[in-house]
Amino acid sequence: VESRAIDGGVTAPKGFKAAGVRCGIKQKGLDLAMVYSETECSVAAVFTTNAFKAASVLLNQERLPSGRARAVVANSGNANACTGERGMRDARRTSELAGELLGVPADQVLVASTGIIGVPLPMEKIEAGVRQAVGELSDSGGGSASLAIMTTDTRPKTAAREIEINGKPVRIGGMCKGAGMICPNMATMLCFITTDTAVEPAVLQKCLSSNVERSFNCLTIDGDMSTNDSVIMLANGASGCGTITEGSSAYEAFDKALGEVCLDLAREIARDGEGATKFVEVRVTGAATYKDAKAAAMTIANSPLVKTAIFGEDPNWGRVLCAAGRSGAKIEPEMASLYFGDVKIVDRGEPLRIEAETARRPMLANELVITLDLGIGKESASVLTCDFSYDYVKINAEYHT
Amino acid sequence: VESRAIDGGVTAPKGFKAAGVRCGIKQKGLDLAMVYSETECSVAAVFTTNAFKAASVLLNQERLPSGRARAVVANSGNANACTGERGMRDARRTSELAGELLGVPADQVLVASTGIIGVPLPMEKIEAGVRQAVGELSDSGGGSASLAIMTTDTRPKTAAREIEINGKPVRIGGMCKGAGMICPNMATMLCFITTDTAVEPAVLQKCLSSNVERSFNCLTIDGDMSTNDSVIMLANGASGCGTITEGSSAYEAFDKALGEVCLDLAREIARDGEGATKFVEVRVTGAATYKDAKAAAMTIANSPLVKTAIFGEDPNWGRVLCAAGRSGAKIEPEMASLYFGDVKIVDRGEPLRIEAETARRPMLANELVITLDLGIGKESASVLTCDFSYDYVKINAEYHT
Repeated sequence: VESRAIDGGVTAPKGFKAAGVRCGIKQKGLDLAMVYSETECSVAAVFTTNAFKAASVLLNQERLPSGRARAVVANSGNANACTGERGMRDARRTSELAGELLGVPADQVLVASTGIIGVPLPMEKIEAGVRQAVGELSDSGGGSASLAIMTTDTRPKTAAREIEINGKPVRIGGMCKGAGMICPNMATMLCFITTDTAVEPAVLQKCLSSNVERSFNCLTIDGDMSTNDSVIMLANGASGCGTITEGSSAYEAFDKALGEVCLDLAREIARDGEGATKFVEVRVTGAATYKDAKAAAMTIANSPLVKTAIFGEDPNWGRVLCAAGRSGAKIEPEMASLYFGDVKIVDRGEPLRIEAETARRPMLANELVITLDLGIGKESASVLTCDFSYDYVKINAEYHT
Repeated sequence: VESRAIDGGVTAPKGFKAAGVRCGIKQKGLDLAMVYSETECSVAAVFTTNAFKAASVLLNQERLPSGRARAVVANSGNANACTGERGMRDARRTSELAGELLGVPADQVLVASTGIIGVPLPMEKIEAGVRQAVGELSDSGGGSASLAIMTTDTRPKTAAREIEINGKPVRIGGMCKGAGMICPNMATMLCFITTDTAVEPAVLQKCLSSNVERSFNCLTIDGDMSTNDSVIMLANGASGCGTITEGSSAYEAFDKALGEVCLDLAREIARDGEGATKFVEVRVTGAATYKDAKAAAMTIANSPLVKTAIFGEDPNWGRVLCAAGRSGAKIEPEMASLYFGDVKIVDRGEPLRIEAETARRPMLANELVITLDLGIGKESASVLTCDFSYDYVKINAEYHT
């Protein structure tokens, strides 16, 4: 079953409403988003593994075991991280107010925050924003909501796909933000995904976790993991397609479409990386294990030397091998082959004598694929990233707290 | 026993000669160094764990088990890495020629290379350089030798210390190069250490390995580990101080002085980091294990967000906690305290309400100490690094292969 790309973001699936409003946390622009389902949803989520977790993450982790949710409130401009006990109270208060106004239990409202670390949430503004958002919820609000979660992103990021399951059109929609851990403490990758399929929470969690591993967890701008990173998914069953069970052909189709939505969104983040001038995909093939393939690809993608060479359009293949070599992946140097685009640079450990201009050609485009074939197994992984430019340093050094 | 800093580098200890000559591998400057002992030495070494090891590293690893060596030949300008079988033949030939001219067995000559990856060594130049170096060996040659191993280092790096053991003055001398994995493939941290103490190879190896762990392995410019990194140490016994055995007070004094020489050299590398404007020491204390302390310190020191904030003199403490939080170290957020210089920023998980200017003051100096007290144990680690500036990007993006 092929999926079809559609518009609408998180409000593309049936029975979801959303809103994005301005409550004044950021200096300008929308800064509070709400996503709401008309009926109770199965919920699944993946959170940062950072030891310093934001209050919103800690609160959501308390609530996730019920497997049920109705709404998510997300603010930008303040991460409510490293804010101690007051931070927890503020996160809880946000969800309680939203629950009260929406007429749903507070523990079915999840929260998310992104922005500056170590500063208490301005609760008067948040409360006013929650009230306004409830009033503006609409089934075409996906676009505004995607604007309201932006920090230093240069553009909103949404994706949605439609497939057919049991003769019914079903939809998966998503929005995310993130462009590196940007500006002083303007952190975080946040992603919200909705679907009108019916899936039990445990099955939804499994499907979400495996797709996050192959998309957002294969994405790196600068190797820095934030205190707030979250992917939250709601499934309300409004399409009437029936419950999707593991191992069914419906599950396969759903899993594939969800993977596409996740990858669409992850690519948007890499393309909007801080100071990025090029979108880069690092593919490692022929690895002994998936873990090895991912470790090698991630180490290449995070290497400042590789990233600055890409910015300089310099076909500096030694840096790529060198980064792979320190990744911990099992490597037999005499089996490894390397390609920039479709130009083979190294053949089973021996550098090919090609012109520098030939090797350089693939680097001149806006998108570069680097492929390292380890030649010793069948596993592979792709990591999405971007180059490392003067502007990355500028963005991160010149903004003062 | 206090050690005394002295001049002379690798020729400070008795019985060692060295030379640095120009053989024409680099566009200018000295590019071939030789270190020679008048008598047979115990040898110990620590090499890169990169899977793509340079030919010199592979050859030295073959030779190290004998525990004996007489000389080291090192060239700059060409790393002889990713050069396949020809690279091994060239490394072997270099040691054979040096052995022949010095009148010592070829397997007692170690080799080292640093420079461009994937290009065969220019053997005619190397051979001429070896001949010239043998002719110029002198007991005051430590300075020239330290110049001949430089690539894009802005200055040579030597250190030497004298202590008294069993009533005899004994010396430890060293030289190193490295400023990040610099310019396209101009890679590598190389370090050579000599001493006129007598130490059995196994004891020397143990002492060297533990001191490398606390110095060079606690040093990071950009997190990239080269294919050629090597620390090689020769002990010839010429001081007449007698053999130093493990557990003796002589061993303790020697171990301490070796640690000082290693730290002196490691600090020099951090100060000369690519594009560096500030020298930074990241101390993590109160950790449950040394491994945790080092992981947290290393993750903070490698974080591009932390390094760009330091360049921008921005007291962005959220980035420091965030990096520590993703390091894998055991952390209880409510126990962690953070200091910039002597200014306390976070006290047991609660951010202190201090003026931004107060937090910023320690960042204005050329040297910054960041201390993270995890507050849950007794182990600590210090990592040496530098900031991340426009010039790092410039150096690494603009030099073309």
